[in-house]
Amino acid sequence: MPTLTQFRLCPFSRSIRMLLGELRREVTLLDERPWEWRAEFLRLNPAGELPVMRLDGGEVLCGAYAISEYLAEEVAAVQEGGEGRNPVLPGNRLERAEVRRLVDWFHRKLHLEATDALLEEKVISRLRGSGGTAPDAGNLRAVRANLKYHLGYLDHLASQRRWLAGEEVTYADFAAAAHVSCADYLGEIDWSTLGAARGWYARVKSRPSVRAILAERVPGAPTPPIHYSDPDF
Amino acid sequence: MPTLTQFRLCPFSRSIRMLLGELRREVTLLDERPWEWRAEFLRLNPAGELPVMRLDGGEVLCGAYAISEYLAEEVAAVQEGGEGRNPVLPGNRLERAEVRRLVDWFHRKLHLEATDALLEEKVISRLRGSGGTAPDAGNLRAVRANLKYHLGYLDHLASQRRWLAGEEVTYADFAAAAHVSCADYLGEIDWSTLGAARGWYARVKSRPSVRAILAERVPGAPTPPIHYSDPDF
Repeated sequence: MPTLTQFRLCPFSRSIRMLLGELRREVTLLDERPWEWRAEFLRLNPAGELPVMRLDGGEVLCGAYAISEYLAEEVAAVQEGGEGRNPVLPGNRLERAEVRRLVDWFHRKLHLEATDALLEEKVISRLRGSGGTAPDAGNLRAVRANLKYHLGYLDHLASQRRWLAGEEVTYADFAAAAHVSCADYLGEIDWSTLGAARGWYARVKSRPSVRAILAERVPGAPTPPIHYSDPDF
Repeated sequence: MPTLTQFRLCPFSRSIRMLLGELRREVTLLDERPWEWRAEFLRLNPAGELPVMRLDGGEVLCGAYAISEYLAEEVAAVQEGGEGRNPVLPGNRLERAEVRRLVDWFHRKLHLEATDALLEEKVISRLRGSGGTAPDAGNLRAVRANLKYHLGYLDHLASQRRWLAGEEVTYADFAAAAHVSCADYLGEIDWSTLGAARGWYARVKSRPSVRAILAERVPGAPTPPIHYSDPDF
Protein backbone atom coordinates (compact mmCIF):
# COMPACT_ATOMS: atom_id res chain seq x y z
CA MET A 1 0.00 0.00 0.00
CA PRO A 2 1.29 3.54 -0.69
CA THR A 3 2.38 5.59 2.31
CA LEU A 4 1.77 9.24 3.13
CA THR A 5 4.22 10.90 5.46
CA GLN A 6 2.35 13.70 7.20
CA PHE A 7 1.65 15.72 10.32
CA ARG A 8 -1.93 15.87 11.58
CA LEU A 9 -2.07 19.66 11.83
CA CYS A 10 -0.17 20.34 8.59
CA PRO A 11 -2.65 21.95 6.14
CA PHE A 12 -0.80 20.59 3.10
CA SER A 13 -0.96 17.05 4.49
CA ARG A 14 -4.65 17.48 5.27
CA SER A 15 -5.48 18.67 1.76
CA ILE A 16 -3.85 15.58 0.22
CA ARG A 17 -5.52 13.26 2.72
CA MET A 18 -8.90 14.76 1.77
CA LEU A 19 -8.11 14.25 -1.91
CA LEU A 20 -7.08 10.63 -1.33
CA GLY A 21 -10.29 10.10 0.61
CA GLU A 22 -12.36 11.55 -2.25
CA LEU A 23 -10.59 9.22 -4.68
CA ARG A 24 -11.09 6.29 -2.28
CA ARG A 25 -7.38 5.61 -2.32
CA GLU A 26 -6.05 3.94 0.79
CA VAL A 27 -2.66 4.87 2.15
CA THR A 28 -0.71 4.03 5.27
CA LEU A 29 -0.19 7.23 7.28
CA LEU A 30 3.26 7.85 8.72
CA ASP A 31 3.54 10.68 11.24
CA GLU A 32 6.47 13.06 10.92
CA ARG A 33 7.55 16.16 12.85
CA PRO A 34 9.40 17.93 10.07
CA TRP A 35 10.95 20.49 12.44
CA GLU A 36 13.06 17.70 13.91
CA TRP A 37 14.95 17.37 10.62
CA ARG A 38 15.42 13.61 10.90
CA ALA A 39 18.11 12.43 8.51
CA GLU A 40 15.88 9.62 7.23
CA PHE A 41 13.09 12.06 6.42
CA LEU A 42 15.49 14.46 4.67
CA ARG A 43 16.66 11.59 2.48
CA LEU A 44 13.03 11.09 1.45
CA ASN A 45 12.44 14.80 0.79
CA PRO A 46 15.50 17.08 0.84
CA ALA A 47 13.17 20.08 1.25
CA GLY A 48 12.24 18.67 4.67
CA GLU A 49 8.58 19.42 4.01
CA LEU A 50 5.25 17.60 4.10
CA PRO A 51 3.43 15.70 2.75
CA VAL A 52 5.46 13.00 1.01
CA MET A 53 3.78 10.10 -0.80
CA ARG A 54 5.59 6.87 -1.56
CA LEU A 55 3.99 4.74 -4.24
CA ASP A 56 3.93 0.95 -4.29
CA GLY A 57 6.87 0.88 -6.67
CA GLY A 58 8.94 2.96 -4.22
CA GLU A 59 8.65 6.18 -6.24
CA VAL A 60 8.49 9.29 -4.05
CA LEU A 61 6.27 12.35 -4.63
CA CYS A 62 7.21 15.44 -2.61
CA GLY A 63 4.83 18.21 -1.65
CA ALA A 64 1.14 18.99 -2.15
CA TYR A 65 1.74 20.55 -5.59
CA ALA A 66 3.45 17.49 -7.10
CA ILE A 67 1.11 15.02 -5.37
CA SER A 68 -2.17 16.76 -6.28
CA GLU A 69 -1.19 17.19 -9.93
CA TYR A 70 0.04 13.58 -10.07
CA LEU A 71 -3.29 12.32 -8.74
CA ALA A 72 -5.18 14.54 -11.19
CA GLU A 73 -3.17 13.16 -14.12
CA GLU A 74 -3.65 9.61 -12.92
CA VAL A 75 -7.43 10.03 -12.73
CA ALA A 76 -7.48 11.65 -16.17
CA ALA A 77 -5.44 8.78 -17.65
CA VAL A 78 -7.79 6.14 -16.22
CA GLN A 79 -10.79 8.01 -17.60
CA GLU A 80 -9.31 8.61 -21.05
CA GLY A 81 -11.91 7.88 -23.66
CA GLY A 82 -14.30 6.96 -20.88
CA GLU A 83 -16.97 8.69 -18.87
CA GLY A 84 -16.85 10.52 -15.59
CA ARG A 85 -15.43 13.71 -14.21
CA ASN A 86 -12.08 14.42 -12.66
CA PRO A 87 -12.77 15.10 -8.99
CA VAL A 88 -9.37 16.72 -8.48
CA LEU A 89 -9.20 19.25 -11.30
CA PRO A 90 -12.48 19.08 -13.23
CA GLY A 91 -13.69 21.23 -16.09
CA ASN A 92 -11.93 22.74 -19.05
CA ARG A 93 -8.53 24.44 -19.18
CA LEU A 94 -9.86 27.79 -18.02
CA GLU A 95 -11.87 26.26 -15.20
CA ARG A 96 -8.79 24.39 -14.03
CA ALA A 97 -6.84 27.67 -14.11
CA GLU A 98 -9.41 29.06 -11.68
CA VAL A 99 -9.00 26.03 -9.40
CA ARG A 100 -5.23 26.53 -9.46
CA ARG A 101 -5.51 30.26 -8.77
CA LEU A 102 -7.45 29.41 -5.61
CA VAL A 103 -5.20 26.54 -4.55
CA ASP A 104 -2.29 28.97 -4.82
CA TRP A 105 -4.25 31.51 -2.80
CA PHE A 106 -4.89 29.15 0.11
CA HIS A 107 -1.73 27.05 0.05
CA ARG A 108 0.63 29.99 -0.36
CA LYS A 109 -1.00 33.30 0.50
CA LEU A 110 -3.29 32.25 3.35
CA HIS A 111 -0.57 30.00 4.75
CA LEU A 112 2.08 32.72 4.61
CA GLU A 113 -0.18 35.40 6.05
CA ALA A 114 -2.01 33.41 8.71
CA THR A 115 -2.00 29.64 9.23
CA ASP A 116 1.80 29.19 9.20
CA ALA A 117 2.26 31.64 12.09
CA LEU A 118 -0.80 30.37 14.04
CA LEU A 119 0.45 26.79 13.90
CA GLU A 120 4.00 27.84 14.80
CA GLU A 121 2.87 29.97 17.76
CA LYS A 122 0.22 27.64 19.16
CA VAL A 123 1.34 24.12 18.26
CA ILE A 124 4.83 23.64 16.89
CA SER A 125 6.61 25.79 19.46
CA ARG A 126 4.96 23.64 22.17
CA LEU A 127 5.81 20.35 20.54
CA ARG A 128 9.32 21.51 19.83
CA GLY A 129 9.57 22.10 23.56
CA SER A 130 11.34 25.38 22.96
CA GLY A 131 10.88 26.34 26.61
CA GLY A 132 7.20 27.24 26.51
CA THR A 133 7.69 30.78 25.25
CA ALA A 134 4.39 32.67 25.30
CA PRO A 135 2.94 33.52 21.86
CA ASP A 136 4.00 36.97 20.62
CA ALA A 137 0.90 39.15 21.19
CA GLY A 138 1.70 41.74 18.50
CA ASN A 139 2.40 39.09 15.92
CA LEU A 140 -0.77 37.16 16.77
CA ARG A 141 -2.83 40.33 16.41
CA ALA A 142 -1.52 40.95 12.90
CA VAL A 143 -2.02 37.31 11.93
CA ARG A 144 -5.61 37.34 13.20
CA ALA A 145 -6.36 40.44 11.16
CA ASN A 146 -4.97 38.63 8.10
CA LEU A 147 -7.09 35.56 8.84
CA LYS A 148 -10.20 37.72 9.08
CA TYR A 149 -9.47 39.21 5.66
CA HIS A 150 -9.01 35.73 4.16
CA LEU A 151 -12.26 34.47 5.72
CA GLY A 152 -13.96 37.49 4.19
CA TYR A 153 -12.68 36.48 0.77
CA LEU A 154 -13.87 32.92 1.37
CA ASP A 155 -17.29 34.29 2.31
CA HIS A 156 -17.36 36.35 -0.88
CA LEU A 157 -16.49 33.31 -3.03
CA ALA A 158 -19.01 31.08 -1.24
CA SER A 159 -21.75 33.68 -1.72
CA GLN A 160 -21.33 33.45 -5.49
CA ARG A 161 -20.65 29.78 -6.08
CA ARG A 162 -21.75 26.48 -4.59
CA TRP A 163 -18.13 25.32 -4.35
CA LEU A 164 -15.19 27.70 -4.30
CA ALA A 165 -14.13 27.31 -7.93
CA GLY A 166 -17.62 26.83 -9.40
CA GLU A 167 -20.50 24.38 -9.37
CA GLU A 168 -18.37 21.31 -8.66
CA VAL A 169 -16.20 20.38 -5.72
CA THR A 170 -12.49 20.62 -6.59
CA TYR A 171 -9.08 20.51 -4.96
CA ALA A 172 -9.52 24.25 -4.26
CA ASP A 173 -12.19 23.34 -1.68
CA PHE A 174 -9.86 20.87 0.02
CA ALA A 175 -6.92 23.27 0.03
CA ALA A 176 -9.15 25.91 1.65
CA ALA A 177 -10.74 23.43 4.07
CA ALA A 178 -7.32 22.17 5.13
CA HIS A 179 -6.23 25.63 6.30
CA VAL A 180 -9.64 26.57 7.70
CA SER A 181 -9.83 23.34 9.69
CA CYS A 182 -6.38 23.92 11.22
CA ALA A 183 -7.31 27.48 12.24
CA ASP A 184 -10.64 26.20 13.57
CA TYR A 185 -8.86 23.50 15.61
CA LEU A 186 -7.01 26.34 17.33
CA GLY A 187 -10.26 28.19 18.05
CA GLU A 188 -9.28 31.06 15.75
CA ILE A 189 -12.50 31.30 13.72
CA ASP A 190 -15.58 33.18 14.85
CA TRP A 191 -18.25 31.53 12.70
CA SER A 192 -21.02 33.80 14.01
CA THR A 193 -19.81 36.56 11.67
CA LEU A 194 -19.72 34.34 8.57
CA GLY A 195 -22.70 33.42 6.41
CA ALA A 196 -21.94 31.86 3.06
CA ALA A 197 -18.52 30.59 4.19
CA ARG A 198 -20.20 28.78 7.05
CA GLY A 199 -22.65 27.09 4.69
CA TRP A 200 -19.77 26.06 2.45
CA TYR A 201 -17.76 24.69 5.39
CA ALA A 202 -20.79 22.73 6.66
CA ARG A 203 -21.00 21.05 3.22
CA VAL A 204 -17.28 20.32 3.31
CA LYS A 205 -17.40 18.95 6.86
CA SER A 206 -20.14 16.45 5.99
CA ARG A 207 -17.96 14.72 3.39
CA PRO A 208 -16.52 11.42 4.69
CA SER A 209 -13.03 12.39 3.45
CA VAL A 210 -13.06 15.42 5.76
CA ARG A 211 -14.97 13.86 8.68
CA ALA A 212 -12.28 11.26 9.23
CA ILE A 213 -9.67 13.99 9.66
CA LEU A 214 -11.80 16.15 11.96
CA ALA A 215 -12.33 13.14 14.25
CA GLU A 216 -8.62 13.09 15.11
CA ARG A 217 -7.01 14.86 18.05
CA VAL A 218 -3.37 15.88 18.13
CA PRO A 219 -1.48 15.13 21.37
CA GLY A 220 0.33 18.22 22.62
CA ALA A 221 -1.88 20.67 20.70
CA PRO A 222 -4.61 22.72 22.40
CA THR A 223 -8.05 21.07 22.70
CA PRO A 224 -10.27 22.16 19.77
CA PRO A 225 -13.61 23.92 20.43
CA ILE A 226 -16.73 21.74 20.64
CA HIS A 227 -18.03 22.80 17.22
CA TYR A 228 -14.78 21.76 15.52
CA SER A 229 -15.82 18.34 14.26
CA ASP A 230 -19.58 18.94 14.20
CA PRO A 231 -20.91 19.31 10.63
CA ASP A 232 -24.02 20.94 12.05
CA PHE A 233 -22.34 23.85 13.85
CA MET B 1 -2.44 39.86 -28.65
CA PRO B 2 -2.44 38.45 -25.07
CA THR B 3 -1.00 40.67 -22.36
CA LEU B 4 1.27 39.80 -19.45
CA THR B 5 1.16 42.11 -16.45
CA GLN B 6 4.55 41.86 -14.78
CA PHE B 7 7.42 43.51 -12.97
CA ARG B 8 10.89 43.19 -14.48
CA LEU B 9 12.56 41.97 -11.28
CA CYS B 10 9.71 39.68 -10.20
CA PRO B 11 11.00 36.07 -10.42
CA PHE B 12 7.53 34.68 -11.08
CA SER B 13 7.01 37.09 -13.98
CA ARG B 14 10.44 36.20 -15.37
CA SER B 15 9.75 32.46 -15.27
CA ILE B 16 6.54 32.89 -17.28
CA ARG B 17 8.23 35.24 -19.76
CA MET B 18 10.94 32.61 -20.33
CA LEU B 19 8.27 29.96 -20.87
CA LEU B 20 6.39 32.16 -23.35
CA GLY B 21 9.69 32.81 -25.15
CA GLU B 22 10.38 29.07 -25.38
CA LEU B 23 6.90 28.51 -26.80
CA ARG B 24 7.39 31.43 -29.23
CA ARG B 25 4.23 33.04 -27.90
CA GLU B 26 4.15 36.79 -28.23
CA VAL B 27 2.56 38.90 -25.53
CA THR B 28 2.31 42.61 -24.82
CA LEU B 29 4.12 43.33 -21.56
CA LEU B 30 2.41 45.64 -19.08
CA ASP B 31 4.52 46.87 -16.17
CA GLU B 32 2.99 46.83 -12.72
CA ARG B 33 4.30 47.74 -9.27
CA PRO B 34 2.11 45.41 -7.20
CA TRP B 35 3.06 47.07 -3.90
CA GLU B 36 1.12 50.16 -5.01
CA TRP B 37 -2.13 48.17 -4.80
CA ARG B 38 -3.76 49.96 -7.73
CA ALA B 39 -7.50 49.39 -7.72
CA GLU B 40 -7.47 48.49 -11.42
CA PHE B 41 -4.80 45.84 -10.86
CA LEU B 42 -6.64 44.39 -7.85
CA ARG B 43 -9.73 44.02 -10.02
CA LEU B 44 -7.62 41.96 -12.42
CA ASN B 45 -6.12 39.81 -9.65
CA PRO B 46 -7.61 40.18 -6.16
CA ALA B 47 -4.46 38.54 -4.73
CA GLY B 48 -2.54 41.61 -5.93
CA GLU B 49 0.26 39.40 -7.22
CA LEU B 50 2.21 38.89 -10.42
CA PRO B 51 2.21 37.75 -13.16
CA VAL B 52 -1.25 38.02 -14.69
CA MET B 53 -1.95 36.90 -18.25
CA ARG B 54 -4.96 38.13 -20.19
CA LEU B 55 -5.89 36.01 -23.20
CA ASP B 56 -7.30 37.33 -26.46
CA GLY B 57 -10.82 36.46 -25.36
CA GLY B 58 -10.41 38.55 -22.22
CA GLU B 59 -9.97 35.55 -19.88
CA VAL B 60 -7.57 36.22 -17.02
CA LEU B 61 -5.00 33.76 -15.61
CA CYS B 62 -3.53 34.71 -12.23
CA GLY B 63 -0.14 33.62 -10.95
CA ALA B 64 2.75 31.51 -12.20
CA TYR B 65 1.14 28.25 -11.06
CA ALA B 66 -2.11 28.73 -13.01
CA ILE B 67 -0.35 30.20 -16.05
CA SER B 68 2.39 27.56 -16.35
CA GLU B 69 -0.06 24.68 -16.02
CA TYR B 70 -2.44 26.33 -18.49
CA LEU B 71 0.34 26.67 -21.05
CA ALA B 72 1.41 23.06 -20.45
CA GLU B 73 -2.16 21.82 -21.02
CA GLU B 74 -2.51 23.97 -24.13
CA VAL B 75 0.67 22.54 -25.65
CA ALA B 76 -0.41 19.00 -24.76
CA ALA B 77 -3.83 19.56 -26.38
CA VAL B 78 -2.26 20.84 -29.62
CA GLN B 79 0.06 17.84 -29.72
CA GLU B 80 -2.58 15.26 -28.94
CA GLY B 81 -2.14 12.26 -31.20
CA GLY B 82 0.74 14.09 -32.86
CA GLU B 83 4.47 14.18 -32.45
CA GLY B 84 6.72 16.34 -30.40
CA ARG B 85 7.53 16.91 -26.76
CA ASN B 86 5.97 19.24 -24.24
CA PRO B 87 8.60 21.88 -23.50
CA VAL B 88 6.85 22.99 -20.34
CA LEU B 89 6.24 19.74 -18.49
CA PRO B 90 7.74 16.92 -20.57
CA GLY B 91 8.05 13.24 -19.76
CA ASN B 92 5.75 10.83 -18.00
CA ARG B 93 3.69 11.40 -14.85
CA LEU B 94 6.58 10.65 -12.50
CA GLU B 95 8.99 12.86 -14.43
CA ARG B 96 6.48 15.69 -14.30
CA ALA B 97 6.17 15.16 -10.53
CA GLU B 98 9.92 15.75 -10.31
CA VAL B 99 9.60 18.96 -12.37
CA ARG B 100 6.84 20.15 -10.05
CA ARG B 101 8.82 19.27 -6.90
CA LEU B 102 11.60 21.53 -8.15
CA VAL B 103 9.30 24.33 -9.33
CA ASP B 104 7.83 24.33 -5.82
CA TRP B 105 11.34 24.37 -4.37
CA PHE B 106 12.40 27.46 -6.29
CA HIS B 107 9.13 29.37 -6.49
CA ARG B 108 8.20 28.84 -2.85
CA LYS B 109 11.16 27.74 -0.73
CA LEU B 110 13.97 29.70 -2.40
CA HIS B 111 11.71 32.74 -2.73
CA LEU B 112 10.61 32.63 0.89
CA GLU B 113 14.10 32.02 2.25
CA ALA B 114 16.11 34.32 0.01
CA THR B 115 14.96 36.15 -3.12
CA ASP B 116 11.84 37.70 -1.60
CA ALA B 117 13.85 39.45 1.13
CA LEU B 118 16.73 40.41 -1.22
CA LEU B 119 14.34 42.09 -3.64
CA GLU B 120 12.44 43.79 -0.83
CA GLU B 121 15.59 45.12 0.83
CA LYS B 122 17.50 46.16 -2.30
CA VAL B 123 14.84 47.10 -4.85
CA ILE B 124 11.26 47.42 -3.70
CA SER B 125 11.98 49.50 -0.58
CA ARG B 126 13.83 51.96 -2.86
CA LEU B 127 11.10 52.10 -5.48
CA ARG B 128 8.45 52.40 -2.81
CA GLY B 129 10.36 55.48 -1.65
CA SER B 130 9.93 54.42 1.96
CA GLY B 131 12.48 56.99 3.06
CA GLY B 132 15.64 55.19 2.00
CA THR B 133 15.91 52.98 5.07
CA ALA B 134 19.20 51.10 5.03
CA PRO B 135 18.93 47.33 4.50
CA ASP B 136 18.79 45.40 7.79
CA ALA B 137 22.29 43.92 8.16
CA GLY B 138 21.31 40.99 10.38
CA ASN B 139 18.45 40.01 8.10
CA LEU B 140 20.63 40.27 4.98
CA ARG B 141 23.25 38.03 6.58
CA ALA B 142 20.69 35.30 7.27
CA VAL B 143 19.23 35.62 3.78
CA ARG B 144 22.67 35.34 2.17
CA ALA B 145 23.37 32.17 4.16
CA ASN B 146 20.08 30.75 2.87
CA LEU B 147 20.94 31.72 -0.70
CA LYS B 148 24.29 29.96 -0.41
CA TYR B 149 22.55 26.79 0.75
CA HIS B 150 20.13 26.95 -2.19
CA LEU B 151 22.95 27.51 -4.68
CA GLY B 152 24.66 24.47 -3.18
CA TYR B 153 21.55 22.41 -3.88
CA LEU B 154 21.43 23.77 -7.43
CA ASP B 155 25.08 22.78 -7.85
CA HIS B 156 24.28 19.29 -6.57
CA LEU B 157 21.38 18.89 -9.04
CA ALA B 158 23.40 20.29 -11.95
CA SER B 159 26.27 17.90 -11.19
CA GLN B 160 23.98 14.92 -11.71
CA ARG B 161 21.76 16.01 -14.58
CA ARG B 162 22.12 18.09 -17.73
CA TRP B 163 18.99 20.07 -16.85
CA LEU B 164 17.62 20.36 -13.34
CA ALA B 165 14.81 17.81 -13.66
CA GLY B 166 16.59 15.43 -16.04
CA GLU B 167 17.93 15.26 -19.57
CA GLU B 168 15.48 17.78 -21.00
CA VAL B 169 14.94 21.44 -20.27
CA THR B 170 11.70 22.02 -18.33
CA TYR B 171 9.85 24.72 -16.47
CA ALA B 172 11.96 23.80 -13.40
CA ASP B 173 14.97 25.32 -15.17
CA PHE B 174 13.09 28.54 -15.86
CA ALA B 175 11.73 28.78 -12.32
CA ALA B 176 15.27 28.36 -10.97
CA ALA B 177 16.79 30.72 -13.55
CA ALA B 178 14.20 33.37 -12.74
CA HIS B 179 15.25 33.51 -9.08
CA VAL B 180 18.96 33.08 -9.80
CA SER B 181 18.89 35.88 -12.37
CA CYS B 182 17.21 38.28 -9.92
CA ALA B 183 19.79 37.49 -7.21
CA ASP B 184 22.57 37.84 -9.81
CA TYR B 185 21.19 41.22 -10.91
CA LEU B 186 21.68 42.34 -7.31
CA GLY B 187 25.28 41.08 -7.27
CA GLU B 188 24.44 38.43 -4.68
CA ILE B 189 26.00 35.39 -6.37
CA ASP B 190 29.68 34.50 -6.17
CA TRP B 191 30.03 32.27 -9.22
CA SER B 192 33.70 31.50 -8.51
CA THR B 193 32.63 28.98 -5.89
CA LEU B 194 30.14 27.17 -8.16
CA GLY B 195 31.03 24.55 -10.76
CA ALA B 196 28.13 22.54 -12.17
CA ALA B 197 25.57 25.25 -11.37
CA ARG B 198 27.67 27.73 -13.35
CA GLY B 199 27.73 25.41 -16.36
CA TRP B 200 23.95 24.97 -16.11
CA TYR B 201 23.38 28.72 -15.83
CA ALA B 202 25.64 29.37 -18.85
CA ARG B 203 23.43 27.01 -20.89
CA VAL B 204 20.30 28.74 -19.60
CA LYS B 205 21.69 32.21 -20.33
CA SER B 206 22.43 31.36 -23.95
CA ARG B 207 18.77 30.60 -24.70
CA PRO B 208 17.06 33.44 -26.59
CA SER B 209 14.10 33.35 -24.19
CA VAL B 210 16.43 34.20 -21.32
CA ARG B 211 18.80 36.54 -23.17
CA ALA B 212 16.02 38.97 -23.94
CA ILE B 213 15.23 39.33 -20.25
CA LEU B 214 18.86 39.69 -19.17
CA ALA B 215 19.30 42.54 -21.67
CA GLU B 216 16.84 44.69 -19.73
CA ARG B 217 17.73 47.15 -16.99
CA VAL B 218 15.33 48.22 -14.26
CA PRO B 219 15.23 51.96 -13.50
CA GLY B 220 15.62 52.60 -9.78
CA ALA B 221 17.28 49.23 -9.08
CA PRO B 222 21.04 48.89 -8.47
CA THR B 223 23.24 48.46 -11.57
CA PRO B 224 23.89 44.73 -12.16
CA PRO B 225 27.47 43.38 -12.26
CA ILE B 226 29.19 43.19 -15.67
CA HIS B 227 28.86 39.38 -15.92
CA TYR B 228 25.08 39.54 -15.39
CA SER B 229 23.95 39.34 -19.01
CA ASP B 230 27.08 37.64 -20.40
CA PRO B 231 26.43 33.98 -21.25
CA ASP B 232 30.19 33.41 -21.25
CA PHE B 233 30.89 34.49 -17.66
